[in-house]
Amino acid sequence: MNQPVVVRNVEQPPAEAVAALEKYGVATVHEAQGRCGLLASYMRPIYAGAAIAGPAVTVSLPPGDNLMIHVAVEVCRSGCVLVVAPTSPCTDGYFGELLATSLRAHGVKGLVIDAGCRDVGPLTEMKFPVWSRAVSAQGTVKATLGSVNVGVVCAGAYIEAGDVVVADDDGVVAVKRASAHEVVAACEQRVRKEEANRERLARGELGLDIYGLRPKITELGLKYL
Amino acid sequence: MNQPVVVRNVEQPPAEAVAALEKYGVATVHEAQGRCGLLASYMRPIYAGAAIAGPAVTVSLPPGDNLMIHVAVEVCRSGCVLVVAPTSPCTDGYFGELLATSLRAHGVKGLVIDAGCRDVGPLTEMKFPVWSRAVSAQGTVKATLGSVNVGVVCAGAYIEAGDVVVADDDGVVAVKRASAHEVVAACEQRVRKEEANRERLARGELGLDIYGLRPKITELGLKYL
Amino acid sequence: MNQPVVVRNVEQPPAEAVAALEKYGVATVHEAQGRCGLLASYMRPIYAGAAIAGPAVTVSLPPGDNLMIHVAVEVCRSGCVLVVAPTSPCTDGYFGELLATSLRAHGVKGLVIDAGCRDVGPLTEMKFPVWSRAVSAQGTVKATLGSVNVGVVCAGAYIEAGDVVVADDDGVVAVKRASAHEVVAACEQRVRKEEANRERLARGELGLDIYGLRPKITELGLKYL
Amino acid sequence: MNQPVVVRNVEQPPAEAVAALEKYGVATVHEAQGRCGLLASYMRPIYAGAAIAGPAVTVSLPPGDNLMIHVAVEVCRSGCVLVVAPTSPCTDGYFGELLATSLRAHGVKGLVIDAGCRDVGPLTEMKFPVWSRAVSAQGTVKATLGSVNVGVVCAGAYIEAGDVVVADDDGVVAVKRASAHEVVAACEQRVRKEEANRERLARGELGLDIYGLRPKITELGLKYL
Amino acid sequence: MNQPVVVRNVEQPPAEAVAALEKYGVATVHEAQGRCGLLASYMRPIYAGAAIAGPAVTVSLPPGDNLMIHVAVEVCRSGCVLVVAPTSPCTDGYFGELLATSLRAHGVKGLVIDAGCRDVGPLTEMKFPVWSRAVSAQGTVKATLGSVNVGVVCAGAYIEAGDVVVADDDGVVAVKRASAHEVVAACEQRVRKEEANRERLARGELGLDIYGLRPKITELGLKYL
Amino acid sequence: MNQPVVVRNVEQPPAEAVAALEKYGVATVHEAQGRCGLLASYMRPIYAGAAIAGPAVTVSLPPGDNLMIHVAVEVCRSGCVLVVAPTSPCTDGYFGELLATSLRAHGVKGLVIDAGCRDVGPLTEMKFPVWSRAVSAQGTVKATLGSVNVGVVCAGAYIEAGDVVVADDDGVVAVKRASAHEVVAACEQRVRKEEANRERLARGELGLDIYGLRPKITELGLKYL
Repeated sequence: MNQPVVVRNVEQPPAEAVAALEKYGVATVHEAQGRCGLLASYMRPIYAGAAIAGPAVTVSLPPGDNLMIHVAVEVCRSGCVLVVAPTSPCTDGYFGELLATSLRAHGVKGLVIDAGCRDVGPLTEMKFPVWSRAVSAQGTVKATLGSVNVGVVCAGAYIEAGDVVVADDDGVVAVKRASAHEVVAACEQRVRKEEANRERLARGELGLDIYGLRPKITELGLKYL
Repeated sequence: MNQPVVVRNVEQPPAEAVAALEKYGVATVHEAQGRCGLLASYMRPIYAGAAIAGPAVTVSLPPGDNLMIHVAVEVCRSGCVLVVAPTSPCTDGYFGELLATSLRAHGVKGLVIDAGCRDVGPLTEMKFPVWSRAVSAQGTVKATLGSVNVGVVCAGAYIEAGDVVVADDDGVVAVKRASAHEVVAACEQRVRKEEANRERLARGELGLDIYGLRPKITELGLKYL
Repeated sequence: MNQPVVVRNVEQPPAEAVAALEKYGVATVHEAQGRCGLLASYMRPIYAGAAIAGPAVTVSLPPGDNLMIHVAVEVCRSGCVLVVAPTSPCTDGYFGELLATSLRAHGVKGLVIDAGCRDVGPLTEMKFPVWSRAVSAQGTVKATLGSVNVGVVCAGAYIEAGDVVVADDDGVVAVKRASAHEVVAACEQRVRKEEANRERLARGELGLDIYGLRPKITELGLKYL
Repeated sequence: MNQPVVVRNVEQPPAEAVAALEKYGVATVHEAQGRCGLLASYMRPIYAGAAIAGPAVTVSLPPGDNLMIHVAVEVCRSGCVLVVAPTSPCTDGYFGELLATSLRAHGVKGLVIDAGCRDVGPLTEMKFPVWSRAVSAQGTVKATLGSVNVGVVCAGAYIEAGDVVVADDDGVVAVKRASAHEVVAACEQRVRKEEANRERLARGELGLDIYGLRPKITELGLKYL
Repeated sequence: MNQPVVVRNVEQPPAEAVAALEKYGVATVHEAQGRCGLLASYMRPIYAGAAIAGPAVTVSLPPGDNLMIHVAVEVCRSGCVLVVAPTSPCTDGYFGELLATSLRAHGVKGLVIDAGCRDVGPLTEMKFPVWSRAVSAQGTVKATLGSVNVGVVCAGAYIEAGDVVVADDDGVVAVKRASAHEVVAACEQRVRKEEANRERLARGELGLDIYGLRPKITELGLKYL
Repeated sequence: MNQPVVVRNVEQPPAEAVAALEKYGVATVHEAQGRCGLLASYMRPIYAGAAIAGPAVTVSLPPGDNLMIHVAVEVCRSGCVLVVAPTSPCTDGYFGELLATSLRAHGVKGLVIDAGCRDVGPLTEMKFPVWSRAVSAQGTVKATLGSVNVGVVCAGAYIEAGDVVVADDDGVVAVKRASAHEVVAACEQRVRKEEANRERLARGELGLDIYGLRPKITELGLKYL
């Protein structure tokens, strides 16, 4: 049963794991954790080049109503990422430069919102990064409750408060809090392997040979004409 | 970290609650549980008039690959609903009349798939209900693993194995296993209230009066010209 | 400047013109009035075979909030069609069987809504016709005002209260109140011409000859190989 | 270089192969020919239950302009299927009941159009089957040339005049003229194999066993919990 | 009834109001006028940073046909914004660098088009701002009439000739000519209020307190865990 | 019948024609060849300003599986453009910085993919141009065959190996190998004509006069009010 609640205390992921995930970026993290946790590809940054990671403060709210974002600010901790998911599809501009000013004052690193964002000019200038499904100036009301720090489905990914959200030019991925350390280790391994492969590929060696794919394509029956 | 697994034993929801939820239908269940759990509105039945409810057997699988549906059949119990979610957006026709024959032989009541379905003519004839995002004859391969009975996001809703899935002409809603009894009770209450209101509305009384909305619209400042 | 208002008195279109437009149907009316006034093709009937026309009672309301539909019922007159347009894109199920019961009690012929509709099973049974952009059980709140009987853009068409709305299996078209008589006349003419052409086409004559298109395609330079 | 042309003489596929493909239907044909030739899943029949196959007469035409459909009628042969593809995305209603009357008079079995169709009520009554991307009453002009019986991309599939187009409730698939016989043979084989499998599946045997998938899922590393 | 016309003389909005609206930008203007007049969020600028306002010269034209843009140039006045709306959905590239050269020679400040635009490289270089629903090189013909300076629905907003169109990185909003002065006044008020709030938010004060939302969320029943 | 093949030897277009088409760009080439060959407008560059042309190496592959891109690298020649088309709609990130490193080592100029691309930050830094339908970090498997250098439908255009693919900020267009010289000639003519018109338009002359449209709009019946 769904009741509007705010969960104040959320277990946090290890800070050094968060820092490492930020460094590795979305594509590596997504691969390293077994290709899960990715948000839908319609989630795009409002400007290129931003790259963040932080524990999620989650917000579930109604279409066209941003009351709960104001509620959420109070429970945000420095270094977190705000994750906002409407209860039904909506492109309204829930968020703009004033709310960004408020979030920044509380140390929030950025916003991931499965809806619209506005003031993208000013937000770009103040370098407050936002990943959204739309840019829209459409205003919202402050009339109806939702919840903060409950599990939400945001752009097709299930995110719980305290999960690590990683976002860059490739999009957004979520890492379960309990897996953060393990995923960092897998990222390290992946990056090391990729570095070796990159050099060989740059010299003109083929992925067919590096990854040992020739026997497979022969077995599968590929014909060369 | 994401590893391909099949969970064999899943706690089941109470059978009489499932039966009651089937009777109440999607709109009532969705409202009664506080407007949550609804799958995206692009999930449509392949024919009109079907209405089912059952515990979810969940399947997470890759785009264009239905190997895991075959794996899932073995762990289906009589009365369940198969819930299939690709790991990235896909409209391929994972499912047709042969798989429906197999599912029916094991007592499965229907399919909810965030992808495509084919053989809709034969499926309609044999009255095997399917809710899907697309009708597509596009075939799939059987090459890559996924998981069965893990939590999945299907058409925007987070569903765990053993949750109750309710589906009819209005779409699909999921009820948490642990809330099933409570939601049934809320449905009963809602239906009773609606019956009383239906009679009054049928006589021409206004919702404005029945729901006591006149003071609210006055307070909010509505002007009549 | 946008203020929430309800306009009570709306000039009505001539009843016999409304009846004639209902008989001619959407495709003929749209052509006859010079190919304007059509709503977007995503507006689909919830069941096949319904065909209505009536003066529009228009409703502008927020996403996810159906308070103003309740307000609108009071100013509906027998024979009208309710036209509902959210102020930003929304697929929520604003409307179901209870509201249909209420509208029917006041003589409303049907609903055109650029959003979602639910209870499509019961609505089909009671033969209350709805044209909507989505079927969705997603509930709405009753918290925020909008306006009734102001000009609205509904599914891409600008509709004013008292315009005639015509809807059938082909979709929905709006006719300006002041043009209703003129459009009926143009429909009559068109239908007469089409009847003659239908007979010739059924006998195997070509549109190229009936519509005199051969000189045109020659002049434009079409080559036959 | 693109010049408007009408190709009069088109090599036809073998009639008995066309008849066989019609009987097998879209899903079987698509699988049997190696999972190619399928049109996009947004191509839907205007009514359920129609199933046709025939050699394609192809039409390439501009958005919002149906002049070339009139040109095409003259080169249609009895038993063919008209395939219409606009040169840029368009949902206008190029086709209605008058054109259907004309096509029927010339023995055309149905229409596949990557655009809109109107008069769906009358078309359903006269049982003239249409597969389209939209239903729209939006009228078109007759001002600009296109081509007939040239290769077109229709809903994502490349179709040449004389290819066999198969359409039913699952959608539309195209078979290269030269492969028609071979595809029929592959269909026969597939159907025979499916019949045997259907019986076993109906008795409760698992696809895992029938298709020999157990060694594969073991090798791929699936874990049962 | 729809007849192709060009309206030459259009009442113009007050120039100083236009200048003020340009300064305030889309989000502020949209809010200040009561959250109406916004075009759909799919209308995006072809390059970042442009911000204009001007009286609308409106164009209604067929899909894939830009004849009427050429007609419109003649009635454009210095400082205006061209607003182009096809009569049915179309993404064709109606507009490119040559037409921009022509518009600039007549003092037109920019283009808002519910369709496609091309030559975005050259247009960016010459800093001619365009807001469009698509970038597409698809060419158009010059065969069919439409109208200039009639009311149009452009990307979901009803715009009349002489209304003020404001466009920036957040999208496009239209202000009724008669309300221009009043909206400017409301903008001033809003900006003043926002400035005060911005300072407080930057110091870490909460919107919950600044906007007095605490009593409301208590009354609505929000629970803190 | 569809069998996985790699065609090694592909007839190449004339190099000087390729160079000329690159210089003219997408909009001019598309117009010059009679408005055909354009890919869908959802194909967007991952960064602005890239402009390439080259003979196509085509890849047809399954959704979510990039095995065939690795196969294709081996048959790429210096100066070519890789064109990748999944057999059903897919937004997965088939391609990233490692594959770009490999392609660059073999002289490939860029990628056109009717699916997703990832590592857009690194790709932008290394200036490897990609036109894609999506940016997505979603990884792919290497399990199933497809074909290289067969005819493919990519984003709605039919492209054969050795056709010239031209891509810039306006999108992507394909030119048939055999028409390359003829299209270059038509481009030259078009550009010369446009240069003359540009000067006249910049001086304020109207397109109505330059293109001789006045008699046409009079004949079609345009009314000035």
